[in-house]
Amino acid sequence: MDNHTAKSEKTEVVRTFNPDGRYPLLLICEHASNHIPARFQDLGLAPEARASHVAWDPGALETAMNLSKVLDAPLVHGLISRLVYDCNRPPEATDAMPDRSEIFNIPGNRNLPPEEKTMRIETYYRPFEHRVEETLNASPNLKALVTIHSFTPVYHGEPRAVEIGILHDIDTRLADSVLEIANGYQIRRNEPYGPADGVTHTLKRHGLSRGLLNVMIEIRNDLIQTPDQCREMAGHLGNWLNAALSNLADRPIEEAAK
Amino acid sequence: MDNHTAKSEKTEVVRTFNPDGRYPLLLICEHASNHIPARFQDLGLAPEARASHVAWDPGALETAMNLSKVLDAPLVHGLISRLVYDCNRPPEATDAMPDRSEIFNIPGNRNLPPEEKTMRIETYYRPFEHRVEETLNASPNLKALVTIHSFTPVYHGEPRAVEIGILHDIDTRLADSVLEIANGYQIRRNEPYGPADGVTHTLKRHGLSRGLLNVMIEIRNDLIQTPDQCREMAGHLGNWLNAALSNLADRPIEEAAK
Repeated sequence: MDNHTAKSEKTEVVRTFNPDGRYPLLLICEHASNHIPARFQDLGLAPEARASHVAWDPGALETAMNLSKVLDAPLVHGLISRLVYDCNRPPEATDAMPDRSEIFNIPGNRNLPPEEKTMRIETYYRPFEHRVEETLNASPNLKALVTIHSFTPVYHGEPRAVEIGILHDIDTRLADSVLEIANGYQIRRNEPYGPADGVTHTLKRHGLSRGLLNVMIEIRNDLIQTPDQCREMAGHLGNWLNAALSNLADRPIEEAAK
Repeated sequence: MDNHTAKSEKTEVVRTFNPDGRYPLLLICEHASNHIPARFQDLGLAPEARASHVAWDPGALETAMNLSKVLDAPLVHGLISRLVYDCNRPPEATDAMPDRSEIFNIPGNRNLPPEEKTMRIETYYRPFEHRVEETLNASPNLKALVTIHSFTPVYHGEPRAVEIGILHDIDTRLADSVLEIANGYQIRRNEPYGPADGVTHTLKRHGLSRGLLNVMIEIRNDLIQTPDQCREMAGHLGNWLNAALSNLADRPIEEAAK
């Protein structure tokens, strides 16, 4: 078997952008792509559903890449649709491979047999999880972990007023610091989702487990539709994160934890 | 090769006590044993050092076993000295295989080659880490993780007034709740050690990463020297933990995280 054949047989599921970035923050974008590998036959979905926010976070990757350049920070991002496996969910979560998302049924995820679930966990989640672990192990200077997401402006028919969500789990340090600084948008803590929705998995698995500062940023996707919008949003996020981290520098954990 | 031979060749490094315990809390005792496998030739230590607190946490296992019985909670504990590998430290920590501890040099840990470090990580740390993971994966009803440690009453020649330390990292929920209830001893928050000393590894790796309530309890070892003392201490701890968990029940994470 030649190299070309060997390569083409293994799907690439995770990629690191700007791996040598020197800013001490790791960016993560779990829902960067709506790609559904051919073997899943579109999971039985119409093109409309495959293009929609249920399959990925539109604009999130482009914003994250711009942010990676602005800060000179490494970025780990997925290459597979969250409907195949949602890399921001642990294997035991019921919505790691959902058979319904907002208004869409996902036929290809209905009644998945355990072997199929195991295959997807091993093929799509573990390599993503491992890449983040490897990256953090290799860079002991990394102090913070920031995940970049987008959300739909209309959910179940209801328009959402919030424009940017600053989400956290039990460790509120970086979110608090960003919330003190960020302005110019409708910015809310733990909206439109929060820890009770299971969305803080990456923060817990990789941030809290190492004591890293961490925050999840949710951007309403109508604000990051064009390349210019993504660049502008990245500029704001870069300024806020940089200022937030400066304010937190050398503040001992005991103080933050009272 | 018969079974007996096969068994004797593989050292048991971690054990679960009361695995079917039904109380929704996992006890962990990383420094339960001062056993140094024969291949390490006592790490070059005199019997005095091998028996002292630098090699293990005297009284911690017996107290943890009593607590496991009082609460009917499972307990995962180590079977190898912390000087071979300290299971409350990640592989990258400089004190995972220390060449000095308090007043003792550890000759067998001096200038360890990378292969030797890797061997110890794979042989002693990974099975311990894996057992805790497995136990938590298998019991989604577990809500809390509590580690049991002991400390020396005199450190570098200085007597310590604190009798029981309630230690936490960024997640203060269970520690706060225990501190509201515990009494009858000199009880202190994050003493004689705290997160800056690197002692909250297990709490972060297994508790914070899953959003579990978590706390580390440090008991001055002169208070748990006899079987009766260990039983009495376990009785107090059981009462405090039970009351603390009751007080926290159904309190949503958003409230705790403001």
